[in-house]
Amino acid sequence: FYIVNATKIAKEVGLGNRTSTALQSAFFKVSNVIPYELALEKMIEAVKKTFAKKGERIVNANIEAIKRGGEEVIKVEVPEEWKDIEVEENPFEGIGSLPDFVRNVAKVMNRLEGDSLPVSAFIGREDGTFPNGTTQYEKRGVAVDVPEWIPENCIQCNLCAYHCPHAVIRPFLMTEKEYKEAPEGTVALKAVGKDVKGLYYRIQVSVMDCTGCGVCVDVCPTKEKSLVMKPLQTQLEEQKRWDYLHNKVGYKKVTDPFKSLKNSQFAQPLFEFSGACAGCGETPYIKLVTQLYGERMIIANATGCSSIYGASAPATPYSYNEEGKGPAWANSLFEDNAEYGFGMAVAQRKIRTKLERLFRHVVENDYPDRLQATAQEWLENKDDYEKTKEILTKIVPMLEKSLDDPTIKEIYELKDFITKKSIWIIGGDGWAYDIGYGGLDHVIASGENVNLLVLDTEVYSNTGGQTSKASPTAAVAKFSAAGKRIRKKDLGLLAMSYGYVYVAQVAMGANPAQYFKAIKEAESYPGPSLIIAYSTCIAHGIKDMMFAQRHMKEAVEAGFWILYRYDPRREEKGKNPLQIDSKEPDFSKFRDFLLSQVRFSALQRTFPDIAEELYKKAEEDAKWRYNHYKRLASMDYSK
Amino acid sequence: FYIVNATKIAKEVGLGNRTSTALQSAFFKVSNVIPYELALEKMIEAVKKTFAKKGERIVNANIEAIKRGGEEVIKVEVPEEWKDIEVEENPFEGIGSLPDFVRNVAKVMNRLEGDSLPVSAFIGREDGTFPNGTTQYEKRGVAVDVPEWIPENCIQCNLCAYHCPHAVIRPFLMTEKEYKEAPEGTVALKAVGKDVKGLYYRIQVSVMDCTGCGVCVDVCPTKEKSLVMKPLQTQLEEQKRWDYLHNKVGYKKVTDPFKSLKNSQFAQPLFEFSGACAGCGETPYIKLVTQLYGERMIIANATGCSSIYGASAPATPYSYNEEGKGPAWANSLFEDNAEYGFGMAVAQRKIRTKLERLFRHVVENDYPDRLQATAQEWLENKDDYEKTKEILTKIVPMLEKSLDDPTIKEIYELKDFITKKSIWIIGGDGWAYDIGYGGLDHVIASGENVNLLVLDTEVYSNTGGQTSKASPTAAVAKFSAAGKRIRKKDLGLLAMSYGYVYVAQVAMGANPAQYFKAIKEAESYPGPSLIIAYSTCIAHGIKDMMFAQRHMKEAVEAGFWILYRYDPRREEKGKNPLQIDSKEPDFSKFRDFLLSQVRFSALQRTFPDIAEELYKKAEEDAKWRYNHYKRLASMDYSK
Repeated sequence: FYIVNATKIAKEVGLGNRTSTALQSAFFKVSNVIPYELALEKMIEAVKKTFAKKGERIVNANIEAIKRGGEEVIKVEVPEEWKDIEVEENPFEGIGSLPDFVRNVAKVMNRLEGDSLPVSAFIGREDGTFPNGTTQYEKRGVAVDVPEWIPENCIQCNLCAYHCPHAVIRPFLMTEKEYKEAPEGTVALKAVGKDVKGLYYRIQVSVMDCTGCGVCVDVCPTKEKSLVMKPLQTQLEEQKRWDYLHNKVGYKKVTDPFKSLKNSQFAQPLFEFSGACAGCGETPYIKLVTQLYGERMIIANATGCSSIYGASAPATPYSYNEEGKGPAWANSLFEDNAEYGFGMAVAQRKIRTKLERLFRHVVENDYPDRLQATAQEWLENKDDYEKTKEILTKIVPMLEKSLDDPTIKEIYELKDFITKKSIWIIGGDGWAYDIGYGGLDHVIASGENVNLLVLDTEVYSNTGGQTSKASPTAAVAKFSAAGKRIRKKDLGLLAMSYGYVYVAQVAMGANPAQYFKAIKEAESYPGPSLIIAYSTCIAHGIKDMMFAQRHMKEAVEAGFWILYRYDPRREEKGKNPLQIDSKEPDFSKFRDFLLSQVRFSALQRTFPDIAEELYKKAEEDAKWRYNHYKRLASMDYSK
Repeated sequence: FYIVNATKIAKEVGLGNRTSTALQSAFFKVSNVIPYELALEKMIEAVKKTFAKKGERIVNANIEAIKRGGEEVIKVEVPEEWKDIEVEENPFEGIGSLPDFVRNVAKVMNRLEGDSLPVSAFIGREDGTFPNGTTQYEKRGVAVDVPEWIPENCIQCNLCAYHCPHAVIRPFLMTEKEYKEAPEGTVALKAVGKDVKGLYYRIQVSVMDCTGCGVCVDVCPTKEKSLVMKPLQTQLEEQKRWDYLHNKVGYKKVTDPFKSLKNSQFAQPLFEFSGACAGCGETPYIKLVTQLYGERMIIANATGCSSIYGASAPATPYSYNEEGKGPAWANSLFEDNAEYGFGMAVAQRKIRTKLERLFRHVVENDYPDRLQATAQEWLENKDDYEKTKEILTKIVPMLEKSLDDPTIKEIYELKDFITKKSIWIIGGDGWAYDIGYGGLDHVIASGENVNLLVLDTEVYSNTGGQTSKASPTAAVAKFSAAGKRIRKKDLGLLAMSYGYVYVAQVAMGANPAQYFKAIKEAESYPGPSLIIAYSTCIAHGIKDMMFAQRHMKEAVEAGFWILYRYDPRREEKGKNPLQIDSKEPDFSKFRDFLLSQVRFSALQRTFPDIAEELYKKAEEDAKWRYNHYKRLASMDYSK
């Protein structure tokens, strides 16, 4: 067999992590399916055609990669004795402790031998449910470089963890004892802050789960970076530390995760190690929600990227905490996902209305005092998650004593609904602005208490980059090859027209705290909430996805994206419900912002006459929108 | 056989035109399928149950009708000689002048003998097209009373014609000669106004097409009414006058129909004698559009009432003028009608872009001078209907001389597209607010030049009164039997969020001139236009549909409905695009307005506890909305 160091080539020619061109060339060199000289000629032709839009630099880099891919491929002679070699299991997978499902189903499927699985392998999951939290057993080790923590520079802000798309970098808190028992060489800092006094703080990377995107390094705010990218093979020892911290030390509940963004990162993410692209702009949004509400979340997920990385069979990135609680997740179609989540919400409401009747019966009839008191407590606090969680723990043993009573039996059978759930409807812009918009509108109009999170990449990302109503003026995409001529649909404004829908537009890379605030307001709002989250995507063609979060910042600074929150509760107090959270934009940066992305810059090369016109229009449209928001936000509601 | 004067009974007991109860009772009396005493008991029981919501008066009136229906049925002895009687044709149908289709297909279908029609009866209409303008041959004579014109009171305002749901009352202009030749006893006034000087004016009713709703009488603004309802049998002579005026005198083009509402009524309605309910609030809206744009309209019609009365097979109410031109109409589903019309618009645009290329070729190459000049004229005026119509007349003979030239041949084949068309997308609120909203949003977002007319009855009328997102707070409908708890969706505000969509909210009974203005602005706007038209409906349960138009006025006065126009062209001039056209509402009338309709008053009887709460909420919601519009309309756009 043959090997080629395509990673090295890609890096050196300036293609970053894009190894496919070099690999393709190596394939033609060794396979000889057609004469290599001909293959070379055709590959170069194809590159010129395909990447013309992306500029000369990219074309030349690809040509260089093609040439070197062919030149640098090396034949490996296979020694005779290799035929008896035993296949070793991935040492990072947690051999011996693998759950049955992972050992007997997931690993088999991952070896592409799923068709050999007998029906009996699925006993107990006839309804199609797959167990949560199984990406942690994949330990794919796909990164070339991974971050190394530099404790002496760290200010313990937790922003690296907040923005990490794959939940592979996390702050842990250790007691002195735990710190002492940690694997050799583990370094920690004295934790800073009142709540964490006396504990030790460490940033830990699960290097085998890391995709090496580098976002953590880019967002690190310290003058001398507290993270630095190092080759994976130099960091393999870290995996032991991860295992110790994640499994033994765990996630200490000494801080209130709702109190600050920093605190939120000490909470366990219940969405981890997904198959999303390195640097994905969508996944950190979801991750935060699971840190705050994960153990009581029910998620309806639209088709699209978020459904693919949300359930890359056989592995599931949605996970569970030490109590075994985590999000319940299911996927529906582009065209009915809002309705799907709406159904979940209505079902919860109806069942809990029944519970209300049953608990009222207990209170009003002859039942033990303590049970009556607890039933009354539930009736008074049924929409408070923390309280209902406490009540559940208290009441189950009481119920179990009286299962002969038909009312008690009914309550017992509905005990899963005693705690208040948090319903989330998640999807991309193709779903929310286009195909599923009719349903989304129907659901927000309904007044039902649901939370909709729109991961807005402004294009159909997962299906290959088709233009959507979320695509902005001048963006090049499929079906708008000559640039989109119509401005981006304003989904937030549409939702605000109801007056009883909470709406926020966010970009966590631009203002992490604003997103944190918006999520909490949305979840607490007792009606429909819509959060529209700007999500940098590989489809935008920015220089490197390492800058995905910084790119959001630039989008807001240039006036390309507005941050705001619209909270109907403010209107009741005579205040304007709309608050713009971003500063007055600097539109002089607008053009540069567009041109930093291939989705816009391509137009200059393919349709230069149109480009100038559309860039101007894009800027005018952005100004028009900003002015409109400013006018709306300054309306007087006091009368 | 038996007869019963159910019309007389219904009128006398106070059921208006509702004869069914009396007829049902008569049926049981004579059929004896069950003992009449039992039938009587059961009918009364049913009435009490069914009409409880509508109040005691209605229940008692129905019981009275039941009793009298049974008592007053008369047996008619059939004389022997009747068996040889020859069936006479309806003398009003235009015997001898019936088009083949009406004689050979429509009349057969109307006799319920359509299944006897051979395939050969449909030669030439294999594509399913039915000919336009065939309701005029039905002459159903369904009215009990029809309006009689009182010339001495008339001020020639034409409002009766403007508001007539069935286009059965029209003003005609006669020359002195025409007046002299009119059927005996025809009375006319000297026409008032500069343009019509020297002509004679007459209001003419097609009594056999009239449904007798009485709207014309109610809207007549003269102190002593200029119209009075008279039994149909006293007015049969009027049909001759109608035939003379409609067929011989016709519709004089001495006045510009766009100049004033009054003038618009001298134009021929190309939507007439539909099968809509007597007093229908929707049809007058459509009729006006056909008077202004009918000969160049292409209509995509959503499923719903407007598709049923728009094509009650075998008769078609969309008609044609003396040039043979009229609307092209087709119906599509609830869920894709906006897209259907969008496709028509795109097809027109694409074909006309091709025509542009062909005409340019003619101008730039060696063609006869006159042809080149005409081609150039088209290129400069292609979006001006009147000019393209002139050009078409001029150019066709020129083209016919050079059909050997392939370019000329192509132009000739596309000659139907030389004139600018007017694309209309019509439907009800079930379509626009609910099932078809995703598509409607997509179409208005597209920027395409289409006109959407939403006939808003605030409920699914045609399918039997289901609640829609257009239903207002407190309305009782199917699926909201205890009153709607969520406020009406604001479709206009949603459309305004784009900033490049013309939007108007109208109620022709409240402000006829505002509707007239809105239609013209919408059609002239070179992008998507949306007109939301409040349409009184039998589903509202008002006292009598005679007051359908007055009811719109009350809706606006009470603040239940706001009149406004949002014209993006104003923003270019630094003006606020939104103008509120209705006066500051008098909310003290709000409650009375609700209670004048069974859809609201029913709640008081079925759910009295809820009623008060929801009536209050309805009023608060109306105030909330009005305040919001006021704030929006007062925003400063000058900076």
